Amino acid sequence: MLIVMKFGGSSLATNDRIENVAQIIMNKVAEGNRAVVVVSAQGKTTDALIEKGKSVSDMVQPRENDVLLSAGEQMSSSLVAMKLNAEGCAAVSLLGWQAGIMTDANHGNASITDVNAERIISELDKGNVVVVAGFQGVDCENDITTLGRGGSDTTAIALAAALGADICYIYTDVSGVFSANPSVASDAVKHDEISYDEMLEMSSLGAKVLHNRSVSMAKRNGVEFEVRSSFDDKSGTKIRKFAAKKDVTGIVCDSNIAMITVSGIECGESTCRLFELLADKNIPIDVIIRSQGSDKSTGTVCFSVASHICGWISDVINAKKDEIGFDLITAEYNMAKISAVGLGLADSCSVAAVMLSELNALDIHPRYITTGEIRISVIIPRFMAQEAEKRLNSAFFGKKEER
Amino acid sequence: MLIVMKFGGSSLATNDRIENVAQIIMNKVAEGNRAVVVVSAQGKTTDALIEKGKSVSDMVQPRENDVLLSAGEQMSSSLVAMKLNAEGCAAVSLLGWQAGIMTDANHGNASITDVNAERIISELDKGNVVVVAGFQGVDCENDITTLGRGGSDTTAIALAAALGADICYIYTDVSGVFSANPSVASDAVKHDEISYDEMLEMSSLGAKVLHNRSVSMAKRNGVEFEVRSSFDDKSGTKIRKFAAKKDVTGIVCDSNIAMITVSGIECGESTCRLFELLADKNIPIDVIIRSQGSDKSTGTVCFSVASHICGWISDVINAKKDEIGFDLITAEYNMAKISAVGLGLADSCSVAAVMLSELNALDIHPRYITTGEIRISVIIPRFMAQEAEKRLNSAFFGKKEER
Repeated sequence: MLIVMKFGGSSLATNDRIENVAQIIMNKVAEGNRAVVVVSAQGKTTDALIEKGKSVSDMVQPRENDVLLSAGEQMSSSLVAMKLNAEGCAAVSLLGWQAGIMTDANHGNASITDVNAERIISELDKGNVVVVAGFQGVDCENDITTLGRGGSDTTAIALAAALGADICYIYTDVSGVFSANPSVASDAVKHDEISYDEMLEMSSLGAKVLHNRSVSMAKRNGVEFEVRSSFDDKSGTKIRKFAAKKDVTGIVCDSNIAMITVSGIECGESTCRLFELLADKNIPIDVIIRSQGSDKSTGTVCFSVASHICGWISDVINAKKDEIGFDLITAEYNMAKISAVGLGLADSCSVAAVMLSELNALDIHPRYITTGEIRISVIIPRFMAQEAEKRLNSAFFGKKEER
Repeated sequence: MLIVMKFGGSSLATNDRIENVAQIIMNKVAEGNRAVVVVSAQGKTTDALIEKGKSVSDMVQPRENDVLLSAGEQMSSSLVAMKLNAEGCAAVSLLGWQAGIMTDANHGNASITDVNAERIISELDKGNVVVVAGFQGVDCENDITTLGRGGSDTTAIALAAALGADICYIYTDVSGVFSANPSVASDAVKHDEISYDEMLEMSSLGAKVLHNRSVSMAKRNGVEFEVRSSFDDKSGTKIRKFAAKKDVTGIVCDSNIAMITVSGIECGESTCRLFELLADKNIPIDVIIRSQGSDKSTGTVCFSVASHICGWISDVINAKKDEIGFDLITAEYNMAKISAVGLGLADSCSVAAVMLSELNALDIHPRYITTGEIRISVIIPRFMAQEAEKRLNSAFFGKKEER
């Protein structure tokens, strides 16, 4: 079998962990597999390089920043290849440009446009494990690019697709995809498999295990992959096109939420101008709630944003107060968004009812509720979020006899 | 004018020094020059990366080590380009493979075989300062190579040759090439110019300012270059084919010397086998002295080696004692080699006489003396070396009225 294995930064953070990673790879090779390994930068290397760039210049050009950041995966790929060779397992490192990872020129957040896998195939044919530096590629000008956050996952999925790999393992520091965050809900259930769409929805709503982009690429290319832990290498969670249908797949909590309320805004053009402004500034908005005042022509618009940009975006809106036309802007910080995600939600009427009744039992009465094709989200005060996540996980996934 | 400027690791060690380097470059650009800049890794980065590789594996493969080490110059090239751009000076970084630095596949100590300068020229034509990562290249397999110690100087000279640059500046932490080490001999004289051959001899004998290989490449390609300080950017020392002829150009001290004495060795084949063994182990030997015993068929062979390999090489020779055939091997550690270098030495009979009489005045009576076309070297105890260097510098370069 041809397998692609991706290891994240925390799986490579120390020399002991590199040794552990080498052991996992050698086990797979000993079973007769041909292996392509994709590595992230060690531990906090990428953050340190970002800080270094900023310390030299307060104007960091994306092209030069990509040259700087790509050194992180360059170093870890050579270290892993060294370790494998020293253990008697023939290996060779390849950087993005050597591995044929072609991208567009969108420095800092480039998309893979093509993979020229000849060099990788020729190294596999020589009997080498090929260790590819993740997160990086090269554009048509021969300039180094980076793929943005979660980029090494994307590299792995793209290589699995280009090579027609039999399986792609994404090794990380958790053992799979859970029904809720296991460090919050101790009875969270690990899924054996879930669908691309469920995974996409969960990632969008704040689940940290995988980045949206890599899941989209896997879905587009039909790459089946598995998330598992590099600490035990036991079966994790397979992400594939179809998976056993459940009403609810997971409870996801994003505790980095603020609500902005714009009141006394005219319902027609003013509201349009407000959202044009937000689109213009590239602000992703999830929950939006409108209510009309008694005079019917003006009303209130509430929407959620990531809390760390709340102050900035409030200022941006206030600066255009006259142009847009509204009375007042206020913000509620310290909010959280709890979502239930599941392919079965579309067909089930009971999920919303169960969710609200469980929250009610905790004396939580969310003012903001929004639904999508396969999810229901509520916005609640952040200090109640962990209790709510635990309770909802137990309601949907807990052992029946314990309830 | 098209100029090549090379900055060493100590000139780039901190953010303040990067700023200083950017200022020097911008001054040259403001004078109307087109500039190609070659950078080393910052400060002690290369040593840190070497240690990192060794810590992961006690078997470091040269190919993978080159991938690891080349990250050092990659980071510094992007940082310098960032700083220049931030200051309003258009700049672009290029790594060895992007800059067309072609080398052989001798990982860790590769030689530049060719320079494909198209990309550099196209960036210069766009009005960019081109910041090239020194010390690195790419072989015909598209694998990254490094050029060995002093490699960034070699990169600069090779680029100056390929581009037909008008001048090549090697910026370092000293202000030029001196008649002796200015931190030892306070009245050491800075040369305005010296010839390639003098510089080569001085580098071979232990002068640290330039690496042999870069000087050889400059000589071979007729590249005139100038060593100057990145701290003041004042005129330094030009190295060129012809320079004003002096009896003595410099006093060079190498204090990392040990003498090995092999006694009771047969003068014919045994001695040959000894030196074959040393050649086999790639041991560079400078001073060799033979003396015959009273029986005429056996004698003593003394030779100098770098002191840090003295123990190891003594063991190597002892292990072959029966095969070679000798009585005893002994070593004198803590020796130093003082050399006088000058094109005029070939024609002057007085230098040796002056040298020995000056040393005699210090009560130093060297047992080992060796001469070459343009140099005379003596081996003396290390603790006397600084006194000797100072005295000889004053004798050959001191102001007459002060003596």
